[in-house]
Amino acid sequence: MDFNKQYSTYVDIIETELNHLLPEQNVPEGILYKAMRYSLLSGGKRIRPVLSLAVCDMLNGNIFDVIDFACSIEMIHTYSLIHDDLPAMDNDDYRRGKPSNHKVFGEAAAILAGDGLLNTAFEVMSRAVIKMSEKNEKQLNSDIGTNGLKAMELVAKASGAGGMIGGQIIDISGIGALGNQIDTAKLSEIEKLDHMHMLKTGAIIKASVLVPAMIAGSDENRLSALAGFSESIGLAFQIKDDILDGDGYVALLGVDRSKTMLDSLISKASVFLYPFGENAGFLTQLAGYIANRSA
Amino acid sequence: MDFNKQYSTYVDIIETELNHLLPEQNVPEGILYKAMRYSLLSGGKRIRPVLSLAVCDMLNGNIFDVIDFACSIEMIHTYSLIHDDLPAMDNDDYRRGKPSNHKVFGEAAAILAGDGLLNTAFEVMSRAVIKMSEKNEKQLNSDIGTNGLKAMELVAKASGAGGMIGGQIIDISGIGALGNQIDTAKLSEIEKLDHMHMLKTGAIIKASVLVPAMIAGSDENRLSALAGFSESIGLAFQIKDDILDGDGYVALLGVDRSKTMLDSLISKASVFLYPFGENAGFLTQLAGYIANRSA
Repeated sequence: MDFNKQYSTYVDIIETELNHLLPEQNVPEGILYKAMRYSLLSGGKRIRPVLSLAVCDMLNGNIFDVIDFACSIEMIHTYSLIHDDLPAMDNDDYRRGKPSNHKVFGEAAAILAGDGLLNTAFEVMSRAVIKMSEKNEKQLNSDIGTNGLKAMELVAKASGAGGMIGGQIIDISGIGALGNQIDTAKLSEIEKLDHMHMLKTGAIIKASVLVPAMIAGSDENRLSALAGFSESIGLAFQIKDDILDGDGYVALLGVDRSKTMLDSLISKASVFLYPFGENAGFLTQLAGYIANRSA
Repeated sequence: MDFNKQYSTYVDIIETELNHLLPEQNVPEGILYKAMRYSLLSGGKRIRPVLSLAVCDMLNGNIFDVIDFACSIEMIHTYSLIHDDLPAMDNDDYRRGKPSNHKVFGEAAAILAGDGLLNTAFEVMSRAVIKMSEKNEKQLNSDIGTNGLKAMELVAKASGAGGMIGGQIIDISGIGALGNQIDTAKLSEIEKLDHMHMLKTGAIIKASVLVPAMIAGSDENRLSALAGFSESIGLAFQIKDDILDGDGYVALLGVDRSKTMLDSLISKASVFLYPFGENAGFLTQLAGYIANRSA
Protein backbone atom coordinates (compact mmCIF):
# COMPACT_ATOMS: atom_id res chain seq x y z
CA MET A 1 0.00 0.00 0.00
CA ASP A 2 1.05 3.58 -0.67
CA PHE A 3 2.85 5.15 2.32
CA ASN A 4 0.55 8.14 2.76
CA LYS A 5 -2.54 5.98 2.48
CA GLN A 6 -1.20 3.53 5.04
CA TYR A 7 -0.27 6.42 7.34
CA SER A 8 -3.79 7.84 7.23
CA THR A 9 -5.29 4.41 7.78
CA TYR A 10 -3.29 4.17 11.00
CA VAL A 11 -4.30 7.70 12.00
CA ASP A 12 -7.98 6.88 11.41
CA ILE A 13 -7.74 3.82 13.66
CA ILE A 14 -6.02 5.92 16.33
CA GLU A 15 -8.50 8.82 16.18
CA THR A 16 -11.44 6.43 16.44
CA GLU A 17 -9.96 4.66 19.44
CA LEU A 18 -8.92 7.88 21.22
CA ASN A 19 -12.45 9.17 20.83
CA HIS A 20 -13.80 5.87 22.12
CA LEU A 21 -11.44 5.74 25.11
CA LEU A 22 -12.25 9.28 26.23
CA PRO A 23 -15.89 10.01 25.40
CA GLU A 24 -17.74 13.15 26.44
CA GLN A 25 -19.30 12.64 29.84
CA ASN A 26 -22.61 14.00 30.99
CA VAL A 27 -21.44 14.34 34.60
CA PRO A 28 -20.99 17.32 36.92
CA GLU A 29 -17.25 17.26 36.27
CA GLY A 30 -17.89 17.17 32.48
CA ILE A 31 -15.75 20.27 31.88
CA LEU A 32 -12.67 18.20 32.78
CA TYR A 33 -13.44 15.74 29.98
CA LYS A 34 -14.06 18.65 27.59
CA ALA A 35 -10.61 20.07 28.42
CA MET A 36 -8.93 16.67 28.05
CA ARG A 37 -10.67 15.99 24.74
CA TYR A 38 -9.90 19.49 23.42
CA SER A 39 -6.18 18.75 23.40
CA LEU A 40 -6.29 15.01 22.80
CA LEU A 41 -8.48 15.23 19.71
CA SER A 42 -6.96 18.33 18.15
CA GLY A 43 -5.10 16.54 15.39
CA GLY A 44 -1.34 16.29 15.37
CA LYS A 45 0.80 13.85 13.42
CA ARG A 46 0.21 10.94 15.85
CA ILE A 47 3.74 9.73 15.09
CA ARG A 48 4.14 7.81 18.36
CA PRO A 49 1.00 5.65 18.08
CA VAL A 50 1.57 5.24 14.32
CA LEU A 51 5.01 3.83 15.16
CA SER A 52 3.41 1.34 17.56
CA LEU A 53 0.86 0.12 15.04
CA ALA A 54 3.43 -0.06 12.24
CA VAL A 55 5.87 -2.11 14.34
CA CYS A 56 2.99 -4.38 15.33
CA ASP A 57 2.14 -4.93 11.65
CA MET A 58 5.79 -5.48 10.72
CA LEU A 59 5.94 -8.25 13.32
CA ASN A 60 2.64 -9.73 12.09
CA GLY A 61 1.12 -8.94 15.49
CA ASN A 62 -2.51 -8.19 16.27
CA ILE A 63 -3.22 -4.45 16.21
CA PHE A 64 -6.02 -4.90 18.74
CA ASP A 65 -3.51 -6.06 21.35
CA VAL A 66 -1.52 -2.86 20.83
CA ILE A 67 -3.98 -0.06 20.04
CA ASP A 68 -4.77 0.84 23.66
CA PHE A 69 -1.08 1.12 24.48
CA ALA A 70 -0.55 3.26 21.38
CA CYS A 71 -3.40 5.55 22.44
CA SER A 72 -2.09 5.71 26.02
CA ILE A 73 1.27 6.89 24.73
CA GLU A 74 -0.50 9.60 22.72
CA MET A 75 -2.40 10.63 25.89
CA ILE A 76 0.91 10.91 27.74
CA HIS A 77 2.39 12.96 24.89
CA THR A 78 -0.66 15.25 24.92
CA TYR A 79 -0.56 15.78 28.70
CA SER A 80 3.10 16.78 28.41
CA LEU A 81 2.21 19.36 25.75
CA ILE A 82 -0.57 20.85 27.92
CA HIS A 83 1.76 21.21 30.91
CA ASP A 84 4.65 22.44 28.71
CA ASP A 85 2.45 25.22 27.34
CA LEU A 86 1.51 26.58 30.80
CA PRO A 87 2.61 30.13 31.68
CA ALA A 88 5.02 28.76 34.33
CA MET A 89 6.64 26.55 31.70
CA ASP A 90 7.01 27.64 28.02
CA ASN A 91 4.04 30.02 28.16
CA ASP A 92 2.73 29.17 24.70
CA ASP A 93 -0.61 30.64 23.65
CA TYR A 94 -1.03 28.36 20.64
CA ARG A 95 -0.61 24.66 19.94
CA ARG A 96 -1.29 23.01 16.60
CA GLY A 97 -2.73 26.30 15.35
CA LYS A 98 -5.36 26.49 18.10
CA PRO A 99 -5.32 28.36 21.44
CA SER A 100 -3.48 26.23 23.97
CA ASN A 101 -5.47 24.41 26.66
CA HIS A 102 -5.04 26.99 29.42
CA LYS A 103 -6.04 29.84 27.07
CA VAL A 104 -9.41 28.13 26.58
CA PHE A 105 -10.09 26.49 29.95
CA GLY A 106 -7.89 28.47 32.34
CA GLU A 107 -4.67 27.41 34.03
CA ALA A 108 -6.23 25.36 36.83
CA ALA A 109 -8.33 23.25 34.46
CA ALA A 110 -5.35 22.83 32.13
CA ILE A 111 -3.19 21.48 34.96
CA LEU A 112 -5.98 19.06 35.87
CA ALA A 113 -6.65 18.09 32.24
CA GLY A 114 -2.96 17.17 31.92
CA ASP A 115 -3.08 15.20 35.17
CA GLY A 116 -6.25 13.51 33.94
CA LEU A 117 -4.70 12.42 30.65
CA LEU A 118 -1.62 10.95 32.35
CA ASN A 119 -3.88 9.12 34.75
CA THR A 120 -6.23 7.91 32.02
CA ALA A 121 -3.28 6.47 30.12
CA PHE A 122 -2.48 4.17 33.03
CA GLU A 123 -6.15 3.38 33.55
CA VAL A 124 -6.42 2.32 29.91
CA MET A 125 -3.20 0.27 29.99
CA SER A 126 -4.21 -1.50 33.22
CA ARG A 127 -7.55 -2.45 31.67
CA ALA A 128 -5.81 -3.60 28.49
CA VAL A 129 -3.44 -5.85 30.43
CA ILE A 130 -6.33 -7.31 32.45
CA LYS A 131 -8.05 -8.18 29.16
CA MET A 132 -4.84 -9.75 27.84
CA SER A 133 -4.37 -11.70 31.00
CA GLU A 134 -7.93 -13.07 30.84
CA LYS A 135 -7.47 -14.02 27.18
CA ASN A 136 -4.25 -15.71 28.22
CA GLU A 137 -6.07 -17.95 30.69
CA LYS A 138 -8.65 -18.97 28.13
CA GLN A 139 -6.21 -19.69 25.32
CA LEU A 140 -3.37 -21.02 27.49
CA ASN A 141 -1.04 -19.32 25.02
CA SER A 142 2.34 -17.95 26.08
CA ASP A 143 2.45 -15.18 28.62
CA ILE A 144 0.85 -12.25 26.84
CA GLY A 145 -0.47 -10.86 30.17
CA THR A 146 3.05 -10.66 31.59
CA ASN A 147 4.32 -9.16 28.34
CA GLY A 148 1.64 -6.51 28.61
CA LEU A 149 2.60 -5.76 32.20
CA LYS A 150 6.24 -5.31 31.22
CA ALA A 151 5.19 -3.09 28.34
CA MET A 152 3.23 -0.90 30.76
CA GLU A 153 6.23 -0.71 33.07
CA LEU A 154 8.36 0.39 30.11
CA VAL A 155 5.91 3.18 29.26
CA ALA A 156 5.87 4.27 32.93
CA LYS A 157 9.66 4.47 32.99
CA ALA A 158 9.82 6.30 29.66
CA SER A 159 7.29 8.92 30.69
CA GLY A 160 8.57 9.36 34.26
CA ALA A 161 11.38 11.06 36.13
CA GLY A 162 13.97 8.80 34.47
CA GLY A 163 12.55 9.70 31.05
CA MET A 164 10.33 12.45 29.70
CA ILE A 165 9.79 14.42 32.92
CA GLY A 166 13.52 14.24 33.67
CA GLY A 167 14.22 15.68 30.21
CA GLN A 168 11.68 18.45 30.75
CA ILE A 169 13.30 19.61 33.97
CA ILE A 170 16.66 19.84 32.22
CA ASP A 171 15.01 21.70 29.37
CA ILE A 172 13.43 24.32 31.62
CA SER A 173 16.59 24.65 33.74
CA GLY A 174 18.72 25.00 30.60
CA ILE A 175 21.38 22.44 29.75
CA GLY A 176 23.90 24.70 31.47
CA ALA A 177 22.29 23.64 34.75
CA LEU A 178 23.42 20.06 34.22
CA GLY A 179 26.73 20.83 35.89
CA ASN A 180 24.94 21.71 39.13
CA GLN A 181 24.11 18.12 39.88
CA ILE A 182 27.00 15.97 38.75
CA ASP A 183 30.43 16.57 37.33
CA THR A 184 29.35 17.20 33.78
CA ALA A 185 32.32 19.44 33.06
CA LYS A 186 33.71 16.72 30.84
CA LEU A 187 30.55 16.54 28.75
CA SER A 188 30.52 18.58 25.57
CA GLU A 189 27.54 20.83 24.93
CA ILE A 190 26.37 18.37 22.32
CA GLU A 191 26.53 15.48 24.77
CA LYS A 192 24.42 17.46 27.21
CA LEU A 193 21.89 18.20 24.48
CA ASP A 194 21.86 14.50 23.53
CA HIS A 195 21.21 13.53 27.14
CA MET A 196 18.33 15.98 27.45
CA HIS A 197 16.63 14.85 24.24
CA MET A 198 17.22 11.18 24.92
CA LEU A 199 15.09 11.69 28.04
CA LYS A 200 12.60 14.31 26.90
CA THR A 201 11.57 12.92 23.53
CA GLY A 202 13.73 9.83 22.93
CA ALA A 203 12.47 7.62 25.74
CA ILE A 204 8.80 7.75 24.81
CA ILE A 205 9.53 7.26 21.08
CA LYS A 206 11.59 4.23 22.04
CA ALA A 207 8.69 2.95 24.14
CA SER A 208 6.30 3.43 21.19
CA VAL A 209 8.53 1.13 19.11
CA LEU A 210 9.36 -1.45 21.79
CA VAL A 211 5.88 -1.89 23.31
CA PRO A 212 4.38 -3.78 20.33
CA ALA A 213 7.52 -5.92 20.10
CA MET A 214 7.33 -6.79 23.80
CA ILE A 215 3.64 -7.65 23.48
CA ALA A 216 4.45 -9.85 20.48
CA GLY A 217 7.10 -11.60 22.59
CA SER A 218 10.04 -10.64 20.32
CA ASP A 219 13.45 -12.09 21.18
CA GLU A 220 16.45 -10.08 22.39
CA ASN A 221 17.94 -9.67 18.90
CA ARG A 222 14.81 -8.12 17.50
CA LEU A 223 14.27 -5.93 20.56
CA SER A 224 17.83 -4.71 20.29
CA ALA A 225 17.48 -3.91 16.55
CA LEU A 226 14.24 -2.03 17.25
CA ALA A 227 15.87 -0.15 20.13
CA GLY A 228 18.60 0.98 17.71
CA PHE A 229 15.98 1.99 15.14
CA SER A 230 14.00 3.99 17.69
CA GLU A 231 17.05 5.81 19.06
CA SER A 232 18.05 6.83 15.54
CA ILE A 233 14.65 8.15 14.54
CA GLY A 234 14.13 9.78 17.96
CA LEU A 235 17.27 11.85 17.56
CA ALA A 236 16.55 12.45 13.86
CA PHE A 237 13.10 13.76 14.81
CA GLN A 238 14.68 16.25 17.21
CA ILE A 239 17.39 17.42 14.82
CA LYS A 240 14.77 17.95 12.12
CA ASP A 241 12.77 20.03 14.62
CA ASP A 242 15.86 22.13 15.28
CA ILE A 243 16.54 22.55 11.55
CA LEU A 244 12.97 23.82 11.17
CA ASP A 245 13.29 26.15 14.20
CA GLY A 246 16.97 27.09 13.95
CA ASP A 247 17.83 26.30 17.57
CA GLY A 248 19.18 23.35 19.61
CA TYR A 249 21.53 21.29 17.44
CA VAL A 250 21.54 23.90 14.66
CA ALA A 251 22.67 26.57 17.13
CA LEU A 252 25.53 24.34 18.26
CA LEU A 253 26.54 22.65 15.00
CA GLY A 254 25.24 24.87 12.21
CA VAL A 255 22.74 23.86 9.53
CA ASP A 256 25.10 21.85 7.32
CA ARG A 257 26.50 19.59 10.01
CA SER A 258 23.00 19.13 11.42
CA LYS A 259 21.73 18.02 8.01
CA THR A 260 24.63 15.57 7.62
CA MET A 261 23.87 14.16 11.06
CA LEU A 262 20.17 13.85 10.15
CA ASP A 263 20.97 11.95 6.93
CA SER A 264 23.32 9.61 8.71
CA LEU A 265 20.71 8.85 11.40
CA ILE A 266 18.08 8.03 8.79
CA SER A 267 20.47 5.61 7.03
CA LYS A 268 21.32 4.06 10.37
CA ALA A 269 17.61 3.65 11.15
CA SER A 270 17.10 1.72 7.88
CA VAL A 271 20.05 -0.55 8.61
CA PHE A 272 18.48 -1.53 11.94
CA LEU A 273 15.39 -2.64 9.99
CA TYR A 274 17.29 -5.11 7.70
CA PRO A 275 16.43 -8.14 9.88
CA PHE A 276 12.74 -7.52 9.19
CA GLY A 277 13.11 -7.76 5.41
CA GLU A 278 10.22 -6.75 3.19
CA ASN A 279 7.94 -6.20 6.17
CA ALA A 280 9.98 -3.11 7.06
CA GLY A 281 8.86 -1.10 4.02
CA PHE A 282 6.50 1.26 5.82
CA LEU A 283 8.84 1.98 8.74
CA THR A 284 11.77 2.64 6.40
CA GLN A 285 9.63 5.21 4.62
CA LEU A 286 8.47 6.59 7.95
CA ALA A 287 12.09 7.36 8.85
CA GLY A 288 12.41 9.28 5.60
CA TYR A 289 9.13 11.07 6.33
CA ILE A 290 10.48 12.25 9.69
CA ALA A 291 13.54 13.73 7.99
CA ASN A 292 11.60 15.42 5.20
CA ARG A 293 8.55 16.79 7.00
CA SER A 294 8.06 20.54 6.82
CA ALA A 295 6.38 21.09 10.22
CA MET B 1 -0.73 -3.46 70.86
CA ASP B 2 -1.49 0.11 71.88
CA PHE B 3 -3.16 2.10 69.04
CA ASN B 4 -0.64 4.92 68.90
CA LYS B 5 2.27 2.54 68.96
CA GLN B 6 0.77 0.44 66.17
CA TYR B 7 0.08 3.60 64.15
CA SER B 8 3.70 4.73 64.40
CA THR B 9 4.94 1.26 63.51
CA TYR B 10 2.93 1.49 60.30
CA VAL B 11 4.21 5.01 59.63
CA ASP B 12 7.82 3.85 60.13
CA ILE B 13 7.37 1.06 57.59
CA ILE B 14 5.82 3.53 55.15
CA GLU B 15 8.51 6.21 55.57
CA THR B 16 11.27 3.64 55.07
CA GLU B 17 9.68 2.29 51.93
CA LEU B 18 8.89 5.73 50.46
CA ASN B 19 12.51 6.72 50.96
CA HIS B 20 13.62 3.46 49.37
CA LEU B 21 11.26 3.81 46.38
CA LEU B 22 12.35 7.36 45.59
CA PRO B 23 16.04 7.73 46.50
CA GLU B 24 18.12 10.79 45.75
CA GLN B 25 19.66 10.52 42.31
CA ASN B 26 23.07 11.72 41.28
CA VAL B 27 21.95 12.51 37.75
CA PRO B 28 21.73 15.72 35.70
CA GLU B 29 18.01 15.90 36.38
CA GLY B 30 18.63 15.40 40.14
CA ILE B 31 16.72 18.56 41.05
CA LEU B 32 13.50 16.84 39.97
CA TYR B 33 14.06 14.06 42.50
CA LYS B 34 14.87 16.66 45.16
CA ALA B 35 11.57 18.41 44.49
CA MET B 36 9.63 15.13 44.52
CA ARG B 37 11.29 14.00 47.76
CA TYR B 38 10.79 17.40 49.40
CA SER B 39 7.01 16.95 49.37
CA LEU B 40 6.82 13.17 49.59
CA LEU B 41 9.02 12.93 52.68
CA SER B 42 7.73 15.96 54.54
CA GLY B 43 5.71 14.06 57.12
CA GLY B 44 1.95 14.11 57.13
CA LYS B 45 -0.36 11.65 58.83
CA ARG B 46 -0.01 8.96 56.13
CA ILE B 47 -3.62 7.97 56.77
CA ARG B 48 -4.14 6.41 53.34
CA PRO B 49 -1.18 3.98 53.40
CA VAL B 50 -1.81 3.26 57.10
CA LEU B 51 -5.34 2.21 56.13
CA SER B 52 -3.92 -0.16 53.50
CA LEU B 53 -1.49 -1.80 55.89
CA ALA B 54 -4.08 -2.06 58.65
CA VAL B 55 -6.66 -3.70 56.38
CA CYS B 56 -3.96 -6.09 55.17
CA ASP B 57 -3.17 -7.05 58.77
CA MET B 58 -6.85 -7.39 59.63
CA LEU B 59 -7.20 -9.89 56.78
CA ASN B 60 -4.04 -11.73 57.86
CA GLY B 61 -2.44 -10.73 54.56
CA ASN B 62 1.25 -10.19 53.86
CA ILE B 63 2.24 -6.54 54.26
CA PHE B 64 5.02 -6.96 51.69
CA ASP B 65 2.42 -7.66 48.99
CA VAL B 66 0.68 -4.39 49.82
CA ILE B 67 3.35 -1.87 50.88
CA ASP B 68 4.23 -0.69 47.36
CA PHE B 69 0.57 -0.04 46.59
CA ALA B 70 0.20 1.81 49.89
CA CYS B 71 3.22 3.98 49.03
CA SER B 72 1.94 4.58 45.49
CA ILE B 73 -1.33 5.88 46.91
CA GLU B 74 0.63 8.25 49.16
CA MET B 75 2.62 9.44 46.10
CA ILE B 76 -0.64 10.15 44.31
CA HIS B 77 -1.98 12.01 47.35
CA THR B 78 1.25 14.06 47.53
CA TYR B 79 1.20 14.96 43.83
CA SER B 80 -2.37 16.19 44.24
CA LEU B 81 -1.30 18.44 47.13
CA ILE B 82 1.61 19.91 45.10
CA HIS B 83 -0.68 20.73 42.17
CA ASP B 84 -3.47 21.97 44.49
CA ASP B 85 -1.05 24.44 46.12
CA LEU B 86 -0.02 26.05 42.80
CA PRO B 87 -0.84 29.74 42.28
CA ALA B 88 -3.31 28.84 39.53
CA MET B 89 -5.12 26.51 41.93
CA ASP B 90 -5.43 27.24 45.68
CA ASN B 91 -2.27 29.40 45.77
CA ASP B 92 -1.04 28.10 49.13
CA ASP B 93 2.39 29.19 50.31
CA TYR B 94 2.60 26.61 53.08
CA ARG B 95 1.89 22.91 53.41
CA ARG B 96 2.42 20.90 56.56
CA GLY B 97 4.13 23.92 58.13
CA LYS B 98 6.77 24.16 55.41
CA PRO B 99 6.90 26.35 52.28
CA SER B 100 4.91 24.63 49.54
CA ASN B 101 6.76 22.94 46.70
CA HIS B 102 6.54 25.80 44.20
CA LYS B 103 7.76 28.31 46.82
CA VAL B 104 10.97 26.30 47.11
CA PHE B 105 11.54 24.96 43.60
CA GLY B 106 9.51 27.34 41.43
CA GLU B 107 6.23 26.70 39.64
CA ALA B 108 7.62 24.83 36.66
CA ALA B 109 9.57 22.35 38.79
CA ALA B 110 6.55 21.93 41.09
CA ILE B 111 4.30 21.04 38.14
CA LEU B 112 6.89 18.51 36.98
CA ALA B 113 7.47 17.13 40.50
CA GLY B 114 3.72 16.46 40.74
CA ASP B 115 3.71 14.82 37.31
CA GLY B 116 6.73 12.79 38.37
CA LEU B 117 5.07 11.50 41.54
CA LEU B 118 1.91 10.45 39.71
CA ASN B 119 4.02 8.69 37.13
CA THR B 120 6.27 7.04 39.72
CA ALA B 121 3.20 5.66 41.48
CA PHE B 122 2.24 3.73 38.37
CA GLU B 123 5.84 2.70 37.74
CA VAL B 124 6.01 1.27 41.28
CA MET B 125 2.65 -0.50 41.01
CA SER B 126 3.53 -2.01 37.61
CA ARG B 127 6.77 -3.38 39.05
CA ALA B 128 4.94 -4.70 42.11
CA VAL B 129 2.41 -6.55 39.96
CA ILE B 130 5.18 -8.01 37.80
CA LYS B 131 6.83 -9.35 40.98
CA MET B 132 3.48 -10.78 42.14
CA SER B 133 2.88 -12.37 38.81
CA GLU B 134 6.33 -14.02 38.84
CA LYS B 135 5.78 -15.27 42.39
CA ASN B 136 2.44 -16.60 41.17
CA GLU B 137 4.11 -18.72 38.47
CA LYS B 138 6.57 -20.16 40.92
CA GLN B 139 4.06 -20.96 43.63
CA LEU B 140 1.17 -21.85 41.36
CA ASN B 141 -1.05 -20.25 43.99
CA SER B 142 -4.33 -18.56 43.07
CA ASP B 143 -4.21 -15.52 40.86
CA ILE B 144 -2.41 -12.93 42.92
CA GLY B 145 -0.95 -11.31 39.77
CA THR B 146 -4.42 -10.71 38.35
CA ASN B 147 -5.60 -9.45 41.74
CA GLY B 148 -2.68 -6.98 41.73
CA LEU B 149 -3.60 -5.83 38.23
CA LYS B 150 -7.19 -5.20 39.27
CA ALA B 151 -5.98 -3.35 42.36
CA MET B 152 -3.85 -1.10 40.15
CA GLU B 153 -6.82 -0.45 37.87
CA LEU B 154 -8.87 0.52 40.93
CA VAL B 155 -6.22 3.02 42.04
CA ALA B 156 -6.07 4.44 38.51
CA LYS B 157 -9.84 4.95 38.47
CA ALA B 158 -9.86 6.45 41.96
CA SER B 159 -7.13 8.96 41.19
CA GLY B 160 -8.37 9.83 37.69
CA ALA B 161 -11.02 11.92 36.00
CA GLY B 162 -13.80 9.74 37.44
CA GLY B 163 -12.31 10.18 40.94
CA MET B 164 -9.90 12.61 42.54
CA ILE B 165 -9.20 14.83 39.53
CA GLY B 166 -12.92 15.01 38.78
CA GLY B 167 -13.51 16.15 42.36
CA GLN B 168 -10.78 18.76 42.08
CA ILE B 169 -12.29 20.35 38.99
CA ILE B 170 -15.64 20.67 40.78
CA ASP B 171 -13.85 22.10 43.81
CA ILE B 172 -12.08 24.83 41.81
CA SER B 173 -15.19 25.59 39.75
CA GLY B 174 -17.32 25.78 42.91
CA ILE B 175 -20.16 23.36 43.51
CA GLY B 176 -22.51 25.96 42.04
CA ALA B 177 -20.97 25.11 38.66
CA LEU B 178 -22.35 21.59 38.84
CA GLY B 179 -25.59 22.71 37.28
CA ASN B 180 -23.76 23.76 34.13
CA GLN B 181 -23.18 20.23 33.02
CA ILE B 182 -26.23 18.22 33.96
CA ASP B 183 -29.59 18.93 35.43
CA THR B 184 -28.47 19.16 39.01
CA ALA B 185 -31.25 21.53 39.96
CA LYS B 186 -32.86 18.73 41.89
CA LEU B 187 -29.74 18.10 43.94
CA SER B 188 -29.58 19.81 47.30
CA GLU B 189 -26.44 21.75 48.16
CA ILE B 190 -25.50 18.97 50.53
CA GLU B 191 -25.84 16.35 47.80
CA LYS B 192 -23.58 18.41 45.55
CA LEU B 193 -21.02 18.68 48.33
CA ASP B 194 -21.26 14.91 48.92
CA HIS B 195 -20.67 14.25 45.23
CA MET B 196 -17.61 16.50 45.15
CA HIS B 197 -16.03 14.92 48.23
CA MET B 198 -16.89 11.40 47.21
CA LEU B 199 -14.74 12.04 44.13
CA LYS B 200 -12.05 14.33 45.50
CA THR B 201 -11.12 12.54 48.72
CA GLY B 202 -13.52 9.59 49.03
CA ALA B 203 -12.43 7.57 46.00
CA ILE B 204 -8.76 7.34 46.94
CA ILE B 205 -9.55 6.55 50.59
CA LYS B 206 -11.83 3.79 49.35
CA ALA B 207 -9.03 2.49 47.13
CA SER B 208 -6.63 2.49 50.11
CA VAL B 209 -9.04 0.20 51.94
CA LEU B 210 -10.05 -2.05 49.03
CA VAL B 211 -6.61 -2.59 47.47
CA PRO B 212 -5.27 -4.88 50.24
CA ALA B 213 -8.56 -6.79 50.28
CA MET B 214 -8.42 -7.30 46.51
CA ILE B 215 -4.82 -8.48 46.73
CA ALA B 216 -5.81 -10.89 49.51
CA GLY B 217 -8.57 -12.22 47.25
CA SER B 218 -11.43 -11.25 49.61
CA ASP B 219 -14.94 -12.35 48.63
CA GLU B 220 -17.78 -10.00 47.62
CA ASN B 221 -19.25 -9.81 51.14
CA ARG B 222 -16.01 -8.67 52.68
CA LEU B 223 -15.29 -6.24 49.83
CA SER B 224 -18.74 -4.77 50.24
CA ALA B 225 -18.35 -4.37 54.04
CA LEU B 226 -14.99 -2.69 53.50
CA ALA B 227 -16.45 -0.42 50.82
CA GLY B 228 -19.08 0.68 53.36
CA PHE B 229 -16.42 1.23 56.02
CA SER B 230 -14.27 3.32 53.65
CA GLU B 231 -17.17 5.47 52.48
CA SER B 232 -18.10 6.22 56.09
CA ILE B 233 -14.61 7.18 57.20
CA GLY B 234 -13.94 9.09 53.97
CA LEU B 235 -16.91 11.35 54.57
CA ALA B 236 -16.18 11.52 58.32
CA PHE B 237 -12.65 12.65 57.49
CA GLN B 238 -14.00 15.48 55.34
CA ILE B 239 -16.63 16.61 57.85
CA LYS B 240 -13.99 16.66 60.59
CA ASP B 241 -11.83 18.83 58.30
CA ASP B 242 -14.74 21.20 57.85
CA ILE B 243 -15.41 21.30 61.61
CA LEU B 244 -11.76 22.27 62.11
CA ASP B 245 -11.89 24.90 59.34
CA GLY B 246 -15.48 26.07 59.68
CA ASP B 247 -16.40 25.71 56.00
CA GLY B 248 -17.95 23.09 53.69
CA TYR B 249 -20.46 21.02 55.64
CA VAL B 250 -20.28 23.35 58.65
CA ALA B 251 -21.19 26.31 56.46
CA LEU B 252 -24.21 24.43 55.13
CA LEU B 253 -25.35 22.50 58.21
CA GLY B 254 -23.93 24.34 61.20
CA VAL B 255 -21.51 22.88 63.78
CA ASP B 256 -24.03 20.86 65.78
CA ARG B 257 -25.59 18.99 62.88
CA SER B 258 -22.11 18.39 61.42
CA LYS B 259 -20.95 16.86 64.71
CA THR B 260 -24.03 14.61 64.86
CA MET B 261 -23.35 13.51 61.28
CA LEU B 262 -19.72 12.82 62.14
CA ASP B 263 -20.67 10.67 65.16
CA SER B 264 -23.19 8.70 63.18
CA LEU B 265 -20.63 8.04 60.40
CA ILE B 266 -18.09 6.76 62.92
CA SER B 267 -20.66 4.37 64.44
CA LYS B 268 -21.62 3.22 60.96
CA ALA B 269 -17.94 2.60 60.15
CA SER B 270 -17.61 0.33 63.20
CA VAL B 271 -20.70 -1.63 62.25
CA PHE B 272 -19.20 -2.39 58.85
CA LEU B 273 -16.22 -3.92 60.67
CA TYR B 274 -18.30 -6.44 62.70
CA PRO B 275 -17.67 -9.31 60.25
CA PHE B 276 -13.94 -9.05 60.98
CA GLY B 277 -14.35 -9.62 64.72
CA GLU B 278 -11.41 -9.07 67.02
CA ASN B 279 -9.07 -8.39 64.10
CA ALA B 280 -10.86 -5.09 63.53
CA GLY B 281 -9.61 -3.49 66.75
CA PHE B 282 -7.07 -1.14 65.20
CA LEU B 283 -9.34 0.03 62.37
CA THR B 284 -12.21 0.68 64.77
CA GLN B 285 -9.90 2.88 66.79
CA LEU B 286 -8.62 4.52 63.60
CA ALA B 287 -12.17 5.63 62.79
CA GLY B 288 -12.35 7.25 66.22
CA TYR B 289 -8.94 8.84 65.67
CA ILE B 290 -10.17 10.46 62.44
CA ALA B 291 -13.12 11.98 64.28
CA ASN B 292 -11.07 13.23 67.22
CA ARG B 293 -7.91 14.55 65.54
CA SER B 294 -7.14 18.20 66.12
CA ALA B 295 -5.36 18.96 62.79
